[in-house]
Amino acid sequence: MTSPERVLTFSPVSQQQKSAEEEIANQYAAVRKQTEVLAAPLSAEDQMVQSCAEASPTKWHLAHTSWFFETFILSQRVPGHRPFDQRFQSLFNSYYNSLGPQPEKALRNTFSRPSLDEVMDYRHHVDEHVLGMLRAGDVPDETLKLVELGSNHEQQHQELIVTDIKHAFWTSPLRPAYHNVPQPVGQAGIAQKLQAYAEGLREIGAVPDSFCFDNEAPRHKVFIPGFRLATRLVTCGEYLSFMEDRGYSRPELWLSDGWKVVQTHGWTAPLYWEKSPMGEWRQFTLAGTRRVEENEPVCHVSLYEADAFARWAGARLPTEFEWELAASQCKVDGNLLERGVLHPRAAKAAAGQSLLQMFGDVWEWTASAYLPYPGYKPAEGALGEYNGKFMSNQMVLPRM
Amino acid sequence: MTSPERVLTFSPVSQQQKSAEEEIANQYAAVRKQTEVLAAPLSAEDQMVQSCAEASPTKWHLAHTSWFFETFILSQRVPGHRPFDQRFQSLFNSYYNSLGPQPEKALRNTFSRPSLDEVMDYRHHVDEHVLGMLRAGDVPDETLKLVELGSNHEQQHQELIVTDIKHAFWTSPLRPAYHNVPQPVGQAGIAQKLQAYAEGLREIGAVPDSFCFDNEAPRHKVFIPGFRLATRLVTCGEYLSFMEDRGYSRPELWLSDGWKVVQTHGWTAPLYWEKSPMGEWRQFTLAGTRRVEENEPVCHVSLYEADAFARWAGARLPTEFEWELAASQCKVDGNLLERGVLHPRAAKAAAGQSLLQMFGDVWEWTASAYLPYPGYKPAEGALGEYNGKFMSNQMVLPRM
Amino acid sequence: MTSPERVLTFSPVSQQQKSAEEEIANQYAAVRKQTEVLAAPLSAEDQMVQSCAEASPTKWHLAHTSWFFETFILSQRVPGHRPFDQRFQSLFNSYYNSLGPQPEKALRNTFSRPSLDEVMDYRHHVDEHVLGMLRAGDVPDETLKLVELGSNHEQQHQELIVTDIKHAFWTSPLRPAYHNVPQPVGQAGIAQKLQAYAEGLREIGAVPDSFCFDNEAPRHKVFIPGFRLATRLVTCGEYLSFMEDRGYSRPELWLSDGWKVVQTHGWTAPLYWEKSPMGEWRQFTLAGTRRVEENEPVCHVSLYEADAFARWAGARLPTEFEWELAASQCKVDGNLLERGVLHPRAAKAAAGQSLLQMFGDVWEWTASAYLPYPGYKPAEGALGEYNGKFMSNQMVLPRM
Amino acid sequence: MTSPERVLTFSPVSQQQKSAEEEIANQYAAVRKQTEVLAAPLSAEDQMVQSCAEASPTKWHLAHTSWFFETFILSQRVPGHRPFDQRFQSLFNSYYNSLGPQPEKALRNTFSRPSLDEVMDYRHHVDEHVLGMLRAGDVPDETLKLVELGSNHEQQHQELIVTDIKHAFWTSPLRPAYHNVPQPVGQAGIAQKLQAYAEGLREIGAVPDSFCFDNEAPRHKVFIPGFRLATRLVTCGEYLSFMEDRGYSRPELWLSDGWKVVQTHGWTAPLYWEKSPMGEWRQFTLAGTRRVEENEPVCHVSLYEADAFARWAGARLPTEFEWELAASQCKVDGNLLERGVLHPRAAKAAAGQSLLQMFGDVWEWTASAYLPYPGYKPAEGALGEYNGKFMSNQMVLPRM
Repeated sequence: MTSPERVLTFSPVSQQQKSAEEEIANQYAAVRKQTEVLAAPLSAEDQMVQSCAEASPTKWHLAHTSWFFETFILSQRVPGHRPFDQRFQSLFNSYYNSLGPQPEKALRNTFSRPSLDEVMDYRHHVDEHVLGMLRAGDVPDETLKLVELGSNHEQQHQELIVTDIKHAFWTSPLRPAYHNVPQPVGQAGIAQKLQAYAEGLREIGAVPDSFCFDNEAPRHKVFIPGFRLATRLVTCGEYLSFMEDRGYSRPELWLSDGWKVVQTHGWTAPLYWEKSPMGEWRQFTLAGTRRVEENEPVCHVSLYEADAFARWAGARLPTEFEWELAASQCKVDGNLLERGVLHPRAAKAAAGQSLLQMFGDVWEWTASAYLPYPGYKPAEGALGEYNGKFMSNQMVLPRM
Repeated sequence: MTSPERVLTFSPVSQQQKSAEEEIANQYAAVRKQTEVLAAPLSAEDQMVQSCAEASPTKWHLAHTSWFFETFILSQRVPGHRPFDQRFQSLFNSYYNSLGPQPEKALRNTFSRPSLDEVMDYRHHVDEHVLGMLRAGDVPDETLKLVELGSNHEQQHQELIVTDIKHAFWTSPLRPAYHNVPQPVGQAGIAQKLQAYAEGLREIGAVPDSFCFDNEAPRHKVFIPGFRLATRLVTCGEYLSFMEDRGYSRPELWLSDGWKVVQTHGWTAPLYWEKSPMGEWRQFTLAGTRRVEENEPVCHVSLYEADAFARWAGARLPTEFEWELAASQCKVDGNLLERGVLHPRAAKAAAGQSLLQMFGDVWEWTASAYLPYPGYKPAEGALGEYNGKFMSNQMVLPRM
Repeated sequence: MTSPERVLTFSPVSQQQKSAEEEIANQYAAVRKQTEVLAAPLSAEDQMVQSCAEASPTKWHLAHTSWFFETFILSQRVPGHRPFDQRFQSLFNSYYNSLGPQPEKALRNTFSRPSLDEVMDYRHHVDEHVLGMLRAGDVPDETLKLVELGSNHEQQHQELIVTDIKHAFWTSPLRPAYHNVPQPVGQAGIAQKLQAYAEGLREIGAVPDSFCFDNEAPRHKVFIPGFRLATRLVTCGEYLSFMEDRGYSRPELWLSDGWKVVQTHGWTAPLYWEKSPMGEWRQFTLAGTRRVEENEPVCHVSLYEADAFARWAGARLPTEFEWELAASQCKVDGNLLERGVLHPRAAKAAAGQSLLQMFGDVWEWTASAYLPYPGYKPAEGALGEYNGKFMSNQMVLPRM
Repeated sequence: MTSPERVLTFSPVSQQQKSAEEEIANQYAAVRKQTEVLAAPLSAEDQMVQSCAEASPTKWHLAHTSWFFETFILSQRVPGHRPFDQRFQSLFNSYYNSLGPQPEKALRNTFSRPSLDEVMDYRHHVDEHVLGMLRAGDVPDETLKLVELGSNHEQQHQELIVTDIKHAFWTSPLRPAYHNVPQPVGQAGIAQKLQAYAEGLREIGAVPDSFCFDNEAPRHKVFIPGFRLATRLVTCGEYLSFMEDRGYSRPELWLSDGWKVVQTHGWTAPLYWEKSPMGEWRQFTLAGTRRVEENEPVCHVSLYEADAFARWAGARLPTEFEWELAASQCKVDGNLLERGVLHPRAAKAAAGQSLLQMFGDVWEWTASAYLPYPGYKPAEGALGEYNGKFMSNQMVLPRM
């Protein structure tokens, strides 16, 4: 059970004095820069590591996001564009069968060539041409939309860079830290409450006229029965109570498939948790290994663990519709990438806000399978493979 | 991706002159008899075969259905009941962890003991005591409901007996036939049409006061957008067109997970289909191997194949709600178990019916993941494991 | 690491008043009878069980041994012979690729058809024709040799029947007993000693003019350095000392491949051993589960366990040449099949014999890989597949 | 079936005017230098690649060979030695259980830390201390022997560096070349002949007083029947004849285990061979992909392929004893590492030599299982794990 996302992208309000091309160019440049900032603490060797078949090396992410712009924009929409390297067309294709065969995903850690330096040259080559095109102006609207899509696509890979390097460094015996951001100790907590929502016929999906991924459309009506939603994330302390109540030893709390996984892999705690020789629970973070903080949100739990915890707590996971309804009424603010923390923080009371931590901190499991919205249509051509073909065997994880 | 069912059971109208105990006893006796009728063509050796880990031997089904009555009714609700054999309590437990450990499912084909004769004795012992209890009268309503559940449970296993022996005989090199029912040749077809349904807020789930499995409740409101549903099942002829159009060679038609399966297993046709040396498609049935009939419904396709076919045909699978809405407006009639055919038949026009083949013939794939209805509550105790814990990684297959 | 045999067959001295045909017919009849005696305690259902891919159902052994005679003798050397059932030619072919494709070995437990009754008819049909041919006399020497080979082949399968049904009944949750032979309790032991053998150039391999399998020839010279051999088998008590000395927890005692197996499978004792709730070691035998007897030979240990035990004991396994040299000087006597015990017994002192238990009781691991003797030539035709193609990845287990 | 070696090391004749310490120091320095020369063409990223679980990254080889000297000499025999980094003691332990746990082998490609620069510092730190110890003189003989062992150990890893990077670059989609050594085209061939050897009792194993690995001792007597050995290696042209004669499609040519591998993996040619779109066979070498040269020795065939080829050719593989007997009569000369070719070359007639290519070019399969020599004793302590524990499931590949 892996974890796709249904990304709810709320477009920033823009001052309309800038041209569409300028706006898109600024977004593009900012996103591209951000990716390189994320990769900066990593050596060329670090950027080679692929610690499991589901992850990718950082260098691959740097290259693939560039490939996306070159393949779908420069090669198709900029007359006379010459690819940086013909061989990259296949090499950095992730999963687009209609563009031809791709290297087996699990072997991305054999790509010592091209070197990181060459990949950075590739990035800059692509940047130069994309920005050149945008600055020349008079770009068709459809092309602008593709650049916007490419920038959002690259943001998805920013998350993957962070996720994948965490697993890579966890797997590497020396357990290096990615950065030295100090982690607060003894954060205060806040009581869990339930917020009620009345039943009703609701509109779900992206609002027209703002950017969205194809799987967020079309907007459509869903009847949502009344429900109550927890006002903050589940904490490590609460999860420890579940563990101490023999949560990992009681089949009645688990989905059948989940129980099999627990037994097969001998799970006794979330990923990245370890008991110290002194019996203290510790967790590996991008800032190194540290004590489990009681009031921090628990993270890196699988769907099965989230579901079992909820059953133990006399609750259930929200549906994607419940989650979206609640989130759409919240202000977009939280422990986001921009803060540079890269780890969830304890909830803090906020004036005028009853529902906390809906944005930032962690991805959140829902009880909804990842399926097409009524009337969903994938894009024409190769981009039709972007999302639609993955709509099976996954659950929705909304993300802001 | 396996295939659970959300069973929509429409209770037969009953003449109320019989006592509740009599009614339940009659139903019980009829169901128990039917199981033995289904097993009758099979030798003790046939009833040992378990051709894959997902299937079970016939003898095991005969025993487990009896175990269900003994465990949940006789042992718990009949004072002084002595089990037929203490060892069967664990031996024939399928998956109820709260009743203790069970043998590994894949090893059911090692159960040469007890013999089929002993299992039949076990059945009769259970029958005697269940019917004795019912005939004594004054049975608490809750117990009656358990007998009714057990009878419906046994009907589920009747389907499994037929499904599993088909795979067993397909796997056995001599490919024996289960029965000699003649199969019609050259059945006429009927044109595919689409029937329209208006959008609306609908009631979904079992109607109170009739029997249902716990996963069919509670009845609840769902908003269903307008849709059009094919008026008959997809035929083998239509599926052959998909195959001839290179359906199994075009990744763009498949879910990503499905395409991996196609490539890994080299799928080129539905399960049980084989090309004869003369190049003619043939299929294995319970009546032996025969030509693929153009106008018969195609069956034994996986979700991935059904989904790919639908995409190829410019359609999609219905949701479980769409299917249920349409089915609830149809008369319960069709090529059901009672006809003894055990194979789908070509659709036939029926007076006053535009939607055909909604009952009988085959199970039908939907595009809905198998998830709890809003407000779903599993039963108390061990029976809480009946359905709820399987609500992950499966799609709904409604069945009448 | 599985366990082939290099079978050392010492021909019985025969009184030459009988014709060669008579002798061979008598041997044939006795062997065929013995197989049926071994199968007699098993029901048709028991004879269906195949508890792992390496084992075969008893019914299959009954059929395959008949197939051997029909395929290599009746069909090829008896003009006009009509096979009992054409389909059996492929169905009961074990591994002879030159005779065409065979069913996958792991699926032999799906052969509910033919029934046991039909297989017994097949056996009797083959017996009738083989004995008819022999009794008609004037049989070419080469054909007689094939009947002798077939009888020895069937004796190999007698061992497999016993080995396989033991595993089948061990796997079956009810753990039935194959027979009720009483097992002696508290058998006395005998001290382990070492018998010395001088170095020398020895003759190894079958003596010409007596029956042998092709892998036992040709007789050839081997230089064997001086060595000392234990005078009786390793006992359960000695093996328990190894276990109590943490034998299964000390990597330094194990071959690297063996240590991986120990860790992967969590081995802590030989196959068929279990600790009772009272902490007593018990073992499953063909006569049911019973206490581990201290002075009985330990059995069902893998090569890795035997090798680790030897290292722990400051010894090593003998080579096949050492073993054969020692065995060739012993009288052929011991706890053999004819005694009906089917379980090893404690060693007993025997007048005039210093080396005990070389025949009967158990197969014995050697330190020799199973490789062709110098000058080894497989037979012509399909029988060339009998042994030669298995000469890799196995160790020699001599057997009498 | 993997491929250990029984290395026959013929010590170079030394001019005795140097002290033992000087000699060993020179050997040490030369070997250490050679390793770095081999790694020089590879970037830090190249040195991260581990393309299969059996291989290791170059960087790991550089570190582990240093670890060997630090662990077995500096830490144990140089009072007051401070390890370069305490964490390396476990990190670069390959398989010595008695020194504590080791990282899982398949995860060596996650070792981005330490960096290549740090590993080179580690190497130089070790070099400084080992050479310092040797230059100080008065080194116990046992310690000198350990340095000699460490140097030979490092030479084994030099072979692995070359072997592993070849597989790494083959797996990497861009198929980079390791070096640009020109490969001769159209090399002339030389006729295959057979050289006869008389039977006799021979001495096998290392001659005392020269360096050897523990598995090459003790020297012992083996009776070798008369045999004839091919005078040069099998060529690609001969192997192509085998392929064209349907060698990969005829089960009768293969060991049973080999045939399974052929079918499971769809083998049709040796590793690193590919058919070009024009139908020409090409092979990947360390100098890139090039045409298969008819008269070059075939290489990268598995034991199963070598065995099948031999059977097809009416021959068999030599035993390790036959090979050693023949090799011991040859002059040590050939296409060795020093020539920098790193690829086999066609045999050339040489004055006074009938047997060609016994040294250099390729490793050669024998028909002998890798088993201890009579009287074999592993070293005391952790070094006892060097060879002995791998003496199972492998065949001997002698090497010069």
